Amino acid sequence: MSSLIHPVILCGGGGTRLWPVSLKSRPKPFLPLLGDRTLFEEAVQRVAGDDRFAAPMIVAGPDHLDLIETQVGGEGAHRIIVEPAARNTAPAIALAAASLSADDVLLVCPSDHHIADEHAFRKAAMAAADLARDDWLVSFGIAPTHPETGYGYLHRGEAMDGGYRIAKFVEKPDKERAEGYLASGEYSWNGGIFAFRAGHLLSELEKYRPEMAALVLKAVARGQNDGPRFHPAAQPFSAIEGDSIDYAVMENTARAAMVPADMGWSDIGNWAALQDALVARADDDGNVTRGKVDLDHCSGVMVASDGPRVSVVGLENVCVVVANGEVLVTSREGAQRVGKLPGAARQ
Amino acid sequence: MSSLIHPVILCGGGGTRLWPVSLKSRPKPFLPLLGDRTLFEEAVQRVAGDDRFAAPMIVAGPDHLDLIETQVGGEGAHRIIVEPAARNTAPAIALAAASLSADDVLLVCPSDHHIADEHAFRKAAMAAADLARDDWLVSFGIAPTHPETGYGYLHRGEAMDGGYRIAKFVEKPDKERAEGYLASGEYSWNGGIFAFRAGHLLSELEKYRPEMAALVLKAVARGQNDGPRFHPAAQPFSAIEGDSIDYAVMENTARAAMVPADMGWSDIGNWAALQDALVARADDDGNVTRGKVDLDHCSGVMVASDGPRVSVVGLENVCVVVANGEVLVTSREGAQRVGKLPGAARQ
Repeated sequence: MSSLIHPVILCGGGGTRLWPVSLKSRPKPFLPLLGDRTLFEEAVQRVAGDDRFAAPMIVAGPDHLDLIETQVGGEGAHRIIVEPAARNTAPAIALAAASLSADDVLLVCPSDHHIADEHAFRKAAMAAADLARDDWLVSFGIAPTHPETGYGYLHRGEAMDGGYRIAKFVEKPDKERAEGYLASGEYSWNGGIFAFRAGHLLSELEKYRPEMAALVLKAVARGQNDGPRFHPAAQPFSAIEGDSIDYAVMENTARAAMVPADMGWSDIGNWAALQDALVARADDDGNVTRGKVDLDHCSGVMVASDGPRVSVVGLENVCVVVANGEVLVTSREGAQRVGKLPGAARQ
Repeated sequence: MSSLIHPVILCGGGGTRLWPVSLKSRPKPFLPLLGDRTLFEEAVQRVAGDDRFAAPMIVAGPDHLDLIETQVGGEGAHRIIVEPAARNTAPAIALAAASLSADDVLLVCPSDHHIADEHAFRKAAMAAADLARDDWLVSFGIAPTHPETGYGYLHRGEAMDGGYRIAKFVEKPDKERAEGYLASGEYSWNGGIFAFRAGHLLSELEKYRPEMAALVLKAVARGQNDGPRFHPAAQPFSAIEGDSIDYAVMENTARAAMVPADMGWSDIGNWAALQDALVARADDDGNVTRGKVDLDHCSGVMVASDGPRVSVVGLENVCVVVANGEVLVTSREGAQRVGKLPGAARQ
């Protein structure tokens, strides 16, 4: 049994809530939102330069392969599995599992999250991998920092060596419930980071989604290599009824576990979340700026421009984003609705 | 004695508080801020098509003559007095007075104000002209609508036929005083609109600013005509120590009068004032937009763009202006400080 951890970096998902910076042609993972590195580059480098991790396996649709190959860096040891169609996370992860040896441990990492504390991440990854080797299906339980209503929660159960059983998966709660979860100390966010033993994941998928498992195995068996790219066969894969790994497997299995992870995680789900993630770079009044920006009597504002000067006067807790010829001005609360704007929706 | 009223339209003053729409190269009077017409065009047309008014006399610096001649319209009956240097309103008005007959009545009209009710304006102009013919120096007393701290006030004195004596000129008050003035009903705004008999104005200027009066007369005597343009001689005019008509004459004379004017006046002094002037065009939530604008959950916002789409989410009482490659976002209170922004100040 290899003791290496195999990072599986998922690049699916468009994401329009960071419009107008994030576009369909260049979505969130491939943008340097927090500094010089893109979120995808962060995801790659988070597991690089550490001999406990194998080279990454990247699962992505066909649209952004050029961006991926430009940004992946390293010595070309990576592999890219090209999804023939977008079918949500369960088939994407199963493609990776079926491309590895049965005893390899996968560490599933979304490419559109930010993790401030990489040391804490690696520590949690080791704990998760240990549990995965014992055939637990392991989710990272992100330490919640506020009563977020936009995420699913994990209710912690019985303690185990290095983690906990998951007592219950909880759907996105309302505000009151979210506040209760936060106060109780028994709940974590389900951040979409998982560790599995490849063979065990596939057998659990077989149990709960046999048709999906069969089509994934068929797509891999009939797939073709093209340098670092692997193209699973389109026909069987496209026939899959898509589903998330949570619904397809995690909420069904008897062996769901979690490792607690307090690592400065953010999914940068909207402009307000990005502002929070940049708090260390804020000025004394809590303002964060990028580009040519003049502020006067402002506090808690975030302003980013890819060109034109932006002048902001007398405002609090507002995000102003000028990018790709579009101008967005939103309150922090409004930031959640940006993806529904005509400009974002009709790209 | 001619019974015609001679409009004198003043085009001095830059004004940076409507930046980035208003630029030094094309300042406020020459912009169609409220609709199809510019404020200058409004000023011209306010006294046109009415045989009680003579053709306008325009006093302006050399920088915007092309804009003026494009926008003035009419049959070329206007005259333009080109100020050799900017020396504030007293010398500008005196140039016009010295270019008319002694018994002509001047109606001094700034070109950067909006007046919604032109009928009320003309009625006040007739009353002011009647008093001016009796050698009163007459100011329009604008009916105040809020406790503005940015204007001077006129304290109403003894009633006369068609108006009042001015008991006192009051400098820009603080908020508390302004509220007292508004509550008392005895105060009006000093809007910079005046009526004078030309000869009387010059003799009063002689009395209180003899050097200024002498230099103005010398500049006019040595001036040169160039079609509709009249160029007063530069050397004597430039030697004038500039001053406002209020300081130079109105606050000194024993014969200051006012006519009340409730005519939907606004000096469009900043973006919030423009929003107020456009209230009739607001949607049900009090939003005013111009250009390509998408609003979501907004109230009381004003958004204007000369090109790029602007999307605004979840905001109240904010002005967003995109013009000439600049982006401005300001609170209503902040609107007063726009002129001090680096973008506005360093054009």
